[in-house]
Amino acid sequence: MADKGKKEFMKEAVAEAVRGVLAGDGGPFGAVIVRDGEVVSKAHNMVIRLNDPTAHAEILAIRGACATLGRFSLEDCQIYSSCEPCPMCFSAVHWARIPVLYFGCTRSDAERIGFDDSLLYKMLQDPGEKASFKIKRTGREDALEAFELWEAKTDKVAY
Amino acid sequence: MADKGKKEFMKEAVAEAVRGVLAGDGGPFGAVIVRDGEVVSKAHNMVIRLNDPTAHAEILAIRGACATLGRFSLEDCQIYSSCEPCPMCFSAVHWARIPVLYFGCTRSDAERIGFDDSLLYKMLQDPGEKASFKIKRTGREDALEAFELWEAKTDKVAY
Repeated sequence: MADKGKKEFMKEAVAEAVRGVLAGDGGPFGAVIVRDGEVVSKAHNMVIRLNDPTAHAEILAIRGACATLGRFSLEDCQIYSSCEPCPMCFSAVHWARIPVLYFGCTRSDAERIGFDDSLLYKMLQDPGEKASFKIKRTGREDALEAFELWEAKTDKVAY
Repeated sequence: MADKGKKEFMKEAVAEAVRGVLAGDGGPFGAVIVRDGEVVSKAHNMVIRLNDPTAHAEILAIRGACATLGRFSLEDCQIYSSCEPCPMCFSAVHWARIPVLYFGCTRSDAERIGFDDSLLYKMLQDPGEKASFKIKRTGREDALEAFELWEAKTDKVAY
């Protein structure tokens, strides 16, 4: 893909972010998903509008692209995010099998305007005393029941 | 909360997981969100059913609870997950401000039945050569525009 294309897709992601701020929908983040040089979906952060803490731009763009294409794999797409994705969205890019992520602003830029992911990165490495939530294990023996059922299922769809 | 309560909520999460496997909706994972000793929402993995790679049990349970309560914070809730959450869902618990996470099966149990999060954990620490997707930076100067707009916005909602 030519550099001009990349620059324009990033500008579309930024335009989404701007639209979201002006509408009061959420934080200043936008994302665009591209396939064969065409925009498949675009979205901005809607945490406030939707009362949904998972409604980050990348999550919504991935869900939109999957709905449009009718499949849970975006292995032939690229995602443009106006900012380095948080760990939730980074992981969603992985699960969506998107092979290329472009981002504009960095996590340090985001931290400077009040969106700090550093604790979350630390917790993912080592959920320690300074975690934002407590983590407790319970009922593993019960929980293994569902795994055994999955193992025994002969018509399961791999994903 | 008494241990008996915890055990029962975990059993509800597992029952959701079992329901999902039997319906062919997705992987064997269930989650329940509890507030004041009552179940606010429950969900199972729907990746296959919804063609949505973000439709993990915890994400759907969080979205359900937020829709029911009409707010993006679940700071007065607990989440029960039949399995240790993947990094996407772990991060969603953080963003939802849920103070306590209970889980049953471990990530090792999940890996044994074909759900391996280890590459993703590694990538979140250091996106290196063995990453599942390429990460490229582009257009930061353009992207900072949305951040400047956010900074200048006087009526923004903190979240």
